[in-house]
Order: sequence, then structure tokens, then C-alpha cells
Amino acid sequence: MAISNADWTPGWTTTPPQAGDRLLAISGSNILKPDDGWLLSWEAVGHSDAIGEAVSLGSVDGKRVYVTELEDDAGSGLDPVALRDALLMMEEAPAELLSTGFQVWQWWRDHRYCGRCGLETGFHPQERAKWCDPCGIPWYPRLAPCVIVVIRRDDRLLLARSTRARHHFYSLIAGFVEPGESLEGAVAREVKEETGLDITNVRYQSSQPWPFPHQLMVGFFADYAGGDLVLQEDELADADWYLPGDTPPVPPQTTIAGRLIRAMESEISRGGIAL
Amino acid sequence: MAISNADWTPGWTTTPPQAGDRLLAISGSNILKPDDGWLLSWEAVGHSDAIGEAVSLGSVDGKRVYVTELEDDAGSGLDPVALRDALLMMEEAPAELLSTGFQVWQWWRDHRYCGRCGLETGFHPQERAKWCDPCGIPWYPRLAPCVIVVIRRDDRLLLARSTRARHHFYSLIAGFVEPGESLEGAVAREVKEETGLDITNVRYQSSQPWPFPHQLMVGFFADYAGGDLVLQEDELADADWYLPGDTPPVPPQTTIAGRLIRAMESEISRGGIAL
Repeated sequence: MAISNADWTPGWTTTPPQAGDRLLAISGSNILKPDDGWLLSWEAVGHSDAIGEAVSLGSVDGKRVYVTELEDDAGSGLDPVALRDALLMMEEAPAELLSTGFQVWQWWRDHRYCGRCGLETGFHPQERAKWCDPCGIPWYPRLAPCVIVVIRRDDRLLLARSTRARHHFYSLIAGFVEPGESLEGAVAREVKEETGLDITNVRYQSSQPWPFPHQLMVGFFADYAGGDLVLQEDELADADWYLPGDTPPVPPQTTIAGRLIRAMESEISRGGIAL
Repeated sequence: MAISNADWTPGWTTTPPQAGDRLLAISGSNILKPDDGWLLSWEAVGHSDAIGEAVSLGSVDGKRVYVTELEDDAGSGLDPVALRDALLMMEEAPAELLSTGFQVWQWWRDHRYCGRCGLETGFHPQERAKWCDPCGIPWYPRLAPCVIVVIRRDDRLLLARSTRARHHFYSLIAGFVEPGESLEGAVAREVKEETGLDITNVRYQSSQPWPFPHQLMVGFFADYAGGDLVLQEDELADADWYLPGDTPPVPPQTTIAGRLIRAMESEISRGGIAL
């Protein structure tokens, strides 16, 4: 059963899954993928314990769909695919459904107890939220807004290699927004902290959900305004200014980093300023 | 002691406050404000129990500053000011410091226990985060990204009155971003849900932290593309299209809603499209 994003209607119910429903099965950071698509049928799983911990995601082609965690059993015939590989490498993957499924599962797993009082949480009576009755507070799925920025200096752009990079890609300056900051404030602070540079003309480009574990990436262009490159050693292994078309390997176009880099290369190559 | 935003340097330490340090005192949703500014001296408080629960915010004029919760004691000589009134009405208030202080305090209060296992949390060894050692997970301050949009139809803009409005303002369509969504996706979904309208040409304008309790507001312009106004009854009490300069009362310019409305009025009055 191939599932495109268009087939999925997000939604929420506290009704548990039953015969005829579909399941997104995850195991750690992997999806347990059947041969013919991304979802299992309720009948194919048949572990009532596991299905008892399934969490609603809405519907696919009129059938209810849930996310659940299963043991990665070598005899199951399911293929473990890392979520990261699915989103980075597989253009046919239903990215929104997979990304939402992982985040909803994390939310469910990480709010079993109230962070304020330590007691077990229940369900919110109306919304997709866990609920602490003694404290009277809802616990919604968490999103962590994170800015990412491509900086232009004349006809070059800044690329950097993270100390934590899993690939040999050169990518962009990025970091989490802090409480009390605007997005633009976070961009300027992160650039200053990680590179020592001052920037100007910070302009929004696009956004992308990124479920590792629950980022909302917000992408910007900016122009160099001053300062010398002084790298924050625990964050960046290397950084330099590159001409369009003459860069080291960069992330693929399935990532916001890859798309921001290509968009800035186009802006520089056209000789103008993108709006 | 008047404190402007410029005097405040955000920062973090696990060292408790001591003589010479400053305190932002909150009580529920109020700030307990001394006559001569927004911060108390450590000496002026003198409750070691309360100060034992103070949380670091960085420094003001070279002195360490902390946020703490105190009893609203009528004999203290402190004036309780609602955070909402301070941010909405008082242009001289140090908005970033107050907003950050409230959010950091909420984070501290709401992550005393690990949501995954229910055990008490400790401090992360390096970062501003609570830490669950058995689970190996950090608990950072929470931010909830929230989109807000002003919709244009020819020479008019859409204003709506919320069923939950505390004032008689007409304001904009807004809502929380869901896991797996982009910002633009959230804008289109919220507009469709609350008004029944389709929109196009969604364009970023600006962002603003809004600590009620921990929103990051992200503001957009959009153009009407189709559909009739059908209001979501539990969200909107009224909505209509208004000419610039002929609107009902709208939120003040200290809010992103007020600034988006004014910016759209300017765009329409100039007869062009803002970029």
C-alpha cells in the first residue's frame, strides 16, 4: 500500500485501533516498513499489548491510522528503515505522515507523567494533549523552533562543517530559539556565537518540520556586515566562504539546508538580491 | 533602578544567588515591582527559602540576575503588575527580560519531574536544561510556535473577534503549529479551519516572543483566494472585511497583531504589495 502525503488527513481520536485500521510501526529511530508501503494493517500486527499503546494520527484513504512502537523482530518480514534516511534519501516517502508519526509517538512517550507534580497524566477531554488533573495543565506535543541561515558576502556564501556532522557535508549555521527571543534575534545571536560575524538584512525564506526529535526549522538569508571568522570550537570544525558551484558536498534538496544553499547560489549567480 | 533591554545580558549558571545579586520577583501571572524599576536586590528579599528556588537569567549591569516566585504580601511595598499589562501597555518595560524571566520560571516549575519516567530531574551538566539521568534525556525550556496572519481581499483586510478575547479588540487568525507542519502549512490550515477561506501568496512578515505561557508568534501576510466566511463557532465570535482606517478597535502596536494590521493597512493604502 503506497501512501502519498495527499492521502493522509491529520486527525485525532482517543478510540483505540481495531480491525481494519492502519499502523505506522516504529522501533527506536527506525520505521518497520512492509514491502508494499509504509503502513501495516491491524490484523498483520495482532499484538494486543502493542496495539493498546497506539496513538491516533488521523486517517489514510478513509481508514484510521495510528503510530505504535514494536519490537524489531527479524522474523517479522518488516524492513527497518531509519527515519533520517527515509526523509533525506527517499523522495517517494510520505514525509509529513512519517515526521508527524514520530513526533506524536515521542509526545505520548515523554508525557506519561506530569513534569510539574510527577503524577501520571491522562488525556485532555477535547484536544490532542495529555492532561494533569491535579495541576490543571495540558501537555501538548513539543516543537522546538530552530533557525538556520545562509550568509552572503559579495559573491560568496558561508558554509560550515559541524563537529557533530554524521556526513561529510558542509552546511549552514543553525541553532535553537531561546525563550524571549524573536526568530531574527536568534539568527543574529547564533551567527555571532558560532562564527564571530555580524550580519544584516536578515530575510525569511522558508520552513520545514524536522523530527530529530521535534525541530521546526525556520530558514533565513542574511548579508555579512562585519567581523572575522572565529569558530566556536565545540560547534564548528571548519567554515569558509565559497563561490556558487564550487562548494564542498552539501546536504540534499530534501533538507531545508540544501534548498537554502541552492537558493543563495541562484541569487548570487543572477547577480541580484532575492526577495 | 530602571532596566532597559540593552542592559541585560542573557546567561546561565547553576550557582545560587547571593548578596549583591538581583531578582525578578513573580507571583502567579504578576510581576512584584519595586518603585524604582523591575528588579529587587537579594538583600531586600531576605527569604532564604524563596531564594533557594531562584533560576539564573544572566546579568544586568554586571550583577547576576535571577527569577523567583514570591508571595504577594501586601506589606512588602511591591506593586503587582500583570505581565500582560506590562508588555501590552508599558513601552518602557524591559520586555525581553520580563518575557524570558516568566518563561524560564515556567520551565523550572514544569520540569521538576521527568515526563517519561516520573522521577525527579536534576540539572544538565553543561546547558540550561533539566536532566533525567535514568532516561538520559534533557528537558529544555518549551516554546510553542504559533502563526498569525492578516488576510487581504482587494482593498480590505479580515479582522475577527475571538470567543476568548479579554478585550473588545478585533484581531487576526492565529493558531499553534502542529508536529509535522511547516509554518506556511499551519497558516493555511488555521485559516481554513477557523474561517472556511482559501488563501494564497503567504508571505512572512516578522516574529515576536509572547510568554502566555510560552508562544513564539510568527506573523504572515496572505491574499484571499476563494471561499465564503464560515466561522468556527468555538473560536470566532465575529469576522468581517474592513477598509484601512475604518476598523473596529485593534490590539496596540506592542503586539505583533497590532503591527501586522498597521502594516497591511499601509500596503493597501499605498496600492501596492508589500515585500
